[in-house]
Amino acid sequence: MADKAQIQEAIEVQGEEVRKLKSEKASKEQIDEEVSKLLQLKAQIGEDDGKHQFVLKTAKGTRDYNPKQMAIREKVFNTILGCFKRHGAETIDTPVFELKETLTGKYGEDSKLIYDLKDQGGELLSLRYDLTVPFARYLAMNKITNIKRYHIAKVYRRDNPAMTRGRYREFYQCDFDIAGQYDAMIPDAECLKIVYEILSELDIGDFRIKVNDRRILDGMFAMPWEEVRKEMVSEKGLSEEVADQIGEYVSLQGGMELAERLLQDQKMSQSKQACAGLTDIKLLFSYLQLFQVTDKVVFDLSLARGLDYYTGIIYEGFLTQTGIAAEAQNSSGAEESVSVGSVAGGGRYDGLASAESVRTTEVQAEVMYKKNPKLLSQLQYCEDSGIPLVAILGEQELKDGVADISRADLIAEIKRKTSEA
Amino acid sequence: MADKAQIQEAIEVQGEEVRKLKSEKASKEQIDEEVSKLLQLKAQIGEDDGKHQFVLKTAKGTRDYNPKQMAIREKVFNTILGCFKRHGAETIDTPVFELKETLTGKYGEDSKLIYDLKDQGGELLSLRYDLTVPFARYLAMNKITNIKRYHIAKVYRRDNPAMTRGRYREFYQCDFDIAGQYDAMIPDAECLKIVYEILSELDIGDFRIKVNDRRILDGMFAMPWEEVRKEMVSEKGLSEEVADQIGEYVSLQGGMELAERLLQDQKMSQSKQACAGLTDIKLLFSYLQLFQVTDKVVFDLSLARGLDYYTGIIYEGFLTQTGIAAEAQNSSGAEESVSVGSVAGGGRYDGLASAESVRTTEVQAEVMYKKNPKLLSQLQYCEDSGIPLVAILGEQELKDGVADISRADLIAEIKRKTSEA
Repeated sequence: MADKAQIQEAIEVQGEEVRKLKSEKASKEQIDEEVSKLLQLKAQIGEDDGKHQFVLKTAKGTRDYNPKQMAIREKVFNTILGCFKRHGAETIDTPVFELKETLTGKYGEDSKLIYDLKDQGGELLSLRYDLTVPFARYLAMNKITNIKRYHIAKVYRRDNPAMTRGRYREFYQCDFDIAGQYDAMIPDAECLKIVYEILSELDIGDFRIKVNDRRILDGMFAMPWEEVRKEMVSEKGLSEEVADQIGEYVSLQGGMELAERLLQDQKMSQSKQACAGLTDIKLLFSYLQLFQVTDKVVFDLSLARGLDYYTGIIYEGFLTQTGIAAEAQNSSGAEESVSVGSVAGGGRYDGLASAESVRTTEVQAEVMYKKNPKLLSQLQYCEDSGIPLVAILGEQELKDGVADISRADLIAEIKRKTSEA
Repeated sequence: MADKAQIQEAIEVQGEEVRKLKSEKASKEQIDEEVSKLLQLKAQIGEDDGKHQFVLKTAKGTRDYNPKQMAIREKVFNTILGCFKRHGAETIDTPVFELKETLTGKYGEDSKLIYDLKDQGGELLSLRYDLTVPFARYLAMNKITNIKRYHIAKVYRRDNPAMTRGRYREFYQCDFDIAGQYDAMIPDAECLKIVYEILSELDIGDFRIKVNDRRILDGMFAMPWEEVRKEMVSEKGLSEEVADQIGEYVSLQGGMELAERLLQDQKMSQSKQACAGLTDIKLLFSYLQLFQVTDKVVFDLSLARGLDYYTGIIYEGFLTQTGIAAEAQNSSGAEESVSVGSVAGGGRYDGLASAESVRTTEVQAEVMYKKNPKLLSQLQYCEDSGIPLVAILGEQELKDGVADISRADLIAEIKRKTSEA
């Protein structure tokens, strides 16, 4: 094999020589001579030429997908895609690699997990680590401030993969992001609603979505822990061992009422940051109640997420059943059941992008991201966005369940009207 | 920026130190001390932390796709996918990178265009250059000898891209391959039929598909050119200048009759290789006539294809209109019309793979790859493959246009019967 590789190398060098002579329009004789050398080299490789040898493995932490696995993947993606489109998102695509510089300083200590490309002359490149930083680069480059976009694509992390737990070095992310300035917590609530809808629709068992806020975590870490500890032991009657654990607060779980309670907490309320976080969590839960998803969403102070760029609300979706059946392949190729916990995650990241509004989605049903949307501004938004129909449901109409046409016929009527347009 | 990069570097080193201590279960005091150093470093980066700066470009030879471009891409892919599925293919996926060794020696002098990944410890990796070599690796690894598969994915070439001609360093390939041993030229003819169907359906203007055979090219290069030249000048009355061009044969274009004529050619017939190629071309055209695609397919001796692994028939699809409108972006972001010539290509490569048959496609209408398929062997194939229905059209039925049920109702009847099953 070493000999063959050397000949191959020589063939490449000689091929380059021939190309150079041709591009320099050298004499026919000169070219012929070099071509003949090239053919001699190729002859040395001989009969083997057509029969190539293959290293029979994929790179560490990666896998192939066979047709059956592809069919499952397609089904899952269609569910996710359907939800993203229903929520009015459009899609973009970005290259698999970015300038190394674009990724620098975005992932904190995880930066060492980035795959760099070899310096072969030219730009220094790295494989994308997620879809968020390329998205922010896309927004800044195209001066886009408002967009609801999804992007389903592979990302790359040189982690020590636990493949039996479904973790790989090459894996898909299904991203949904809302960029723009809106009233507090309304887009955030929609993102959680989307996680809720997808996890319900995929039918992979019961789940919970834990929510926290980066500012609450930061506020807690800035607290004078010796004092907090003293208070826990003397005033709240906790054992010293328990109080020693910084994790006391972080064992707290609840909903809106927990956020309210912590806003009254003496230590918590000293941190401006933590209070801002708690206030947002409270507001978020009021929208989550309207969206009817609070049965699965829980405010959990133990939730932390690794990525550096989050600035507010963070969340993560977990399957509650242990040993949930997912598909993996062990080294002998047999399929086995693996345990997957966290299956979705996200958060708010302000300040990643910097003026034009785009709208290229199919027209879908939409609500405005305003806490008190006025009728005129709603109609103005419709005009700007090319939305052809508005359903105005007043109190009387809601009470009667009738809006000119019967409410049950509403969707059919809208479909009829939009297909006429 | 240099300072900031240094601090970022220090943060990464310090973060690693903290992780190490945690994994070694060091004392809380020791961990706290190192965490505090980490926080100090992070504080130095300060307010900038949330507001990241972006290098506002994509890597050389690559591009983003905006929602409008994505919509066009999806439409094109759906046409291609529809054709691949109609022809009974199933899909697989492979990682974006392979072991460097897997790609070594497969692409001849083009190997220098392969993107290598940086050696960050561990395996040496390269981005895939095409989808064919990973497919062959997949077949060998899983001991699959028979499969009809499609794979639509991006590939990577460090070429000097002519982006105004639609050529990029990152681009999609839509591959369709038939692996297995079949009667000569029947799968090859199906591949050409697929190119024909897709180029027709995409409705991007008139096209031609040029066909040649690697062995004809090799045979021509092995000819005693001085003799050929003499013959051209003295016997065929060509000018010396014209005869001097090795390209005399390669200006020939035609169909089955050209293959027949060249088989009689004194010089050509001296090359066993060239004769094998010409015989296959002749046979191929007989199937192409049955498939009714000979209006666009032309045997063209000038056609050569770069890839090293082709061993027989090669082909390439061209748009015949110059300056055909395709979409590209110039540096200012405005769209402009670009000229694209070659839009499809392929060929036969024997000896890339080395025993089990798979079938996971939806059941579609199929023909067997046999030149004289016997009824019993066809029925056996149906049983083995789980095909539930066979339509037997005898001469009398063909003449009457009736096969128990009227021929016009045939498809509806098959649909009805298969949905019952």
